[in-house]
Amino acid sequence: MTVEVDPPEADPNLESAKETGRIEAFSDGVFSIAITLLVLELKVPHIEHAGNGDLWRFIASEWPSYFALLTSFATILIMWVHHHAIFRLARQADAPLLFANGFLLLMVTVVPFPTSVVASYLNTDAARAAAGFYAGVFFVLALSFQVLLRVVLRTCGLSSKTVTRLRNGYRLGPPAYLAAALAAFASAWLSLALCTALWIFWGVMAFRLETRDEQSL
Amino acid sequence: MTVEVDPPEADPNLESAKETGRIEAFSDGVFSIAITLLVLELKVPHIEHAGNGDLWRFIASEWPSYFALLTSFATILIMWVHHHAIFRLARQADAPLLFANGFLLLMVTVVPFPTSVVASYLNTDAARAAAGFYAGVFFVLALSFQVLLRVVLRTCGLSSKTVTRLRNGYRLGPPAYLAAALAAFASAWLSLALCTALWIFWGVMAFRLETRDEQSL
Amino acid sequence: MTVEVDPPEADPNLESAKETGRIEAFSDGVFSIAITLLVLELKVPHIEHAGNGDLWRFIASEWPSYFALLTSFATILIMWVHHHAIFRLARQADAPLLFANGFLLLMVTVVPFPTSVVASYLNTDAARAAAGFYAGVFFVLALSFQVLLRVVLRTCGLSSKTVTRLRNGYRLGPPAYLAAALAAFASAWLSLALCTALWIFWGVMAFRLETRDEQSL
Amino acid sequence: MTVEVDPPEADPNLESAKETGRIEAFSDGVFSIAITLLVLELKVPHIEHAGNGDLWRFIASEWPSYFALLTSFATILIMWVHHHAIFRLARQADAPLLFANGFLLLMVTVVPFPTSVVASYLNTDAARAAAGFYAGVFFVLALSFQVLLRVVLRTCGLSSKTVTRLRNGYRLGPPAYLAAALAAFASAWLSLALCTALWIFWGVMAFRLETRDEQSL
Repeated sequence: MTVEVDPPEADPNLESAKETGRIEAFSDGVFSIAITLLVLELKVPHIEHAGNGDLWRFIASEWPSYFALLTSFATILIMWVHHHAIFRLARQADAPLLFANGFLLLMVTVVPFPTSVVASYLNTDAARAAAGFYAGVFFVLALSFQVLLRVVLRTCGLSSKTVTRLRNGYRLGPPAYLAAALAAFASAWLSLALCTALWIFWGVMAFRLETRDEQSL
Repeated sequence: MTVEVDPPEADPNLESAKETGRIEAFSDGVFSIAITLLVLELKVPHIEHAGNGDLWRFIASEWPSYFALLTSFATILIMWVHHHAIFRLARQADAPLLFANGFLLLMVTVVPFPTSVVASYLNTDAARAAAGFYAGVFFVLALSFQVLLRVVLRTCGLSSKTVTRLRNGYRLGPPAYLAAALAAFASAWLSLALCTALWIFWGVMAFRLETRDEQSL
Repeated sequence: MTVEVDPPEADPNLESAKETGRIEAFSDGVFSIAITLLVLELKVPHIEHAGNGDLWRFIASEWPSYFALLTSFATILIMWVHHHAIFRLARQADAPLLFANGFLLLMVTVVPFPTSVVASYLNTDAARAAAGFYAGVFFVLALSFQVLLRVVLRTCGLSSKTVTRLRNGYRLGPPAYLAAALAAFASAWLSLALCTALWIFWGVMAFRLETRDEQSL
Repeated sequence: MTVEVDPPEADPNLESAKETGRIEAFSDGVFSIAITLLVLELKVPHIEHAGNGDLWRFIASEWPSYFALLTSFATILIMWVHHHAIFRLARQADAPLLFANGFLLLMVTVVPFPTSVVASYLNTDAARAAAGFYAGVFFVLALSFQVLLRVVLRTCGLSSKTVTRLRNGYRLGPPAYLAAALAAFASAWLSLALCTALWIFWGVMAFRLETRDEQSL
């Protein structure tokens, strides 16, 4: 009565590619949801007897929220591009990849929280604490990216030269965000200006790192 | 010890199509989440000692929310159809495409906020400010679509005749939404009526532009 | 300087299948998000000086929320199965399909709102209004499904016998939910019992309709 | 006028694989949304006249939220890996699979609620009730996984030896979470420590169960 059947796919490479592909699709989902949930930070208050002028003033006064939304949105979007560039090098869906990727995804889903803190307190006396916490979360996010990078490069089968080049390309991340977090002790705006400069930098780097990679191969 | 391996896919066209396809899938995710988050604007209040009549009256009094939800839902849905029509012409996943598409996605995710503003203030003295802000956000969304259109058409490889026809087809967007925003200074309802007329217009145009395109090729 | 290029895919059937497939993937996204957002209805209150007994009592007192969540979750999930069964018959992505499917998706995204109304008022004097509104929204949802069914069957190319059988299979939907809405005038529980009976019925029918379909072809 | 057309795909295995694949894609969507919605539990309060020190103190005082978020995030993520491992054995998309999978998805979407309860009450006198409820929900989730496992293994076509091995591999789930729920009567921290130990255990098991499976075939 017992029948031993063959598994549907036999090619281990194909199977493994499908596995990493599925983790990647799941990660894409998390990235796209986290980026869209940022809007929930924008809250509409009940203003008693509001006239048109009152409402326009409220909308204008919300600029810290718009700024925080833009910075977080851009950072997550560009992190997603780099995540993809790294993940397509992954050859093996194993426990280290699951945990490293899970750590990164946890930090990505968490981003709406510090965003909301900055939006609420950038205009107050607690601005420096808000900016420091914000940059601090991005520092841990950058660390989680380093962990994922190491796990992927360990088994990717690329030449040690390419591995070194990729590692160097991303080396800047953690110290840069740490500097942004520490800068908040001096000035909230300096800290946020660094965060803004960093997403623009990584946005331009996104396609430069990839292109170089393809040329070197 | 160093082994130089071939990348899994070598065909650059296929690789490029996969890249734009992945950005498109990510964008689809953002569109579908933003459109579904609109419902969070509908809030259930705690009515003390409510009877059946009180609850029905509350449900009826929420019509500005239903109207705003419908308009935003339809606008995002139809924008998604046009996004797809344009995006499948993209041949190259590069930094300009990433930034242009990111700008559009940012505006799409933001839509629940002005929707909530209209829902909260359409019934008040601040109605014109609410409608003006609402149409104003759609104006910026229409601008972001123009930017994406230009970035895609730059490298799409279509004939200049087709490119011109597509540009003309979408030329109406920004000025129409700007007119809707300015109309709010006269009347909130005129402004919202224009927004409604526009999503119906773009809904009908969605498949007309595509069909013509296929015939001309 | 003008080069007329071929579109990437030439097979119109394949292209059309890809188009309807993409609308379907987008719809799947909306279904899965709407079903998951239902949990946001479950809110944790701040209970002053709460002991373990107080918290257990609060958790137990939330049963109307759990019931409403279960009913809405099951209804959306089973609606999704039927949506899929119908949508894979669609042969043409055109404006009527876009609008009909958009109407259905709008109603699906809206479900968390009446769910929250039932959760908040099932235990109060406004229970009948809450249940009537809830079943009323499902009535409009069932109507939107009928509209989609007609649009799809118009161009699906199936035999008129199969079309008639499918139409008959789904004919029960709108009158059944209308009856549930009207039953709320007599009793909130009768109305909700009908809603529960209906999702179980459609859940069992889901695979029966599909199986028969494959046999008849 | 009546034309009997062939269905687009004729291979029943392929069709069935596509059906289970689509349920799996839908499930992936629900998992990724539920895991990302956890962040909404982190709320930013309005602190009157807050200075930098006040804000840092608030951020530090939120540790029960961070702990609950981490535990729920990791548990859902690892449940997703096991869900995938089981689901790819499914050969038949029928009503039992729909209901069993729907039950599991319902429990997954519900997780943000007990998470929020723990985050709100871990620091209070109601800590044991909060932890007990939390572990209790995971107990029901583990039960729903058992139901799905049985439904899938019933028709998967694997040898009874492999089926037994898989069943034994997952047998520990429900009693372990039941123990964690009961431990809350003694200590909230003991209960949560067990929940933490369990996600680490299942995270390591995830790829061990799969690997052994492939070797035995």
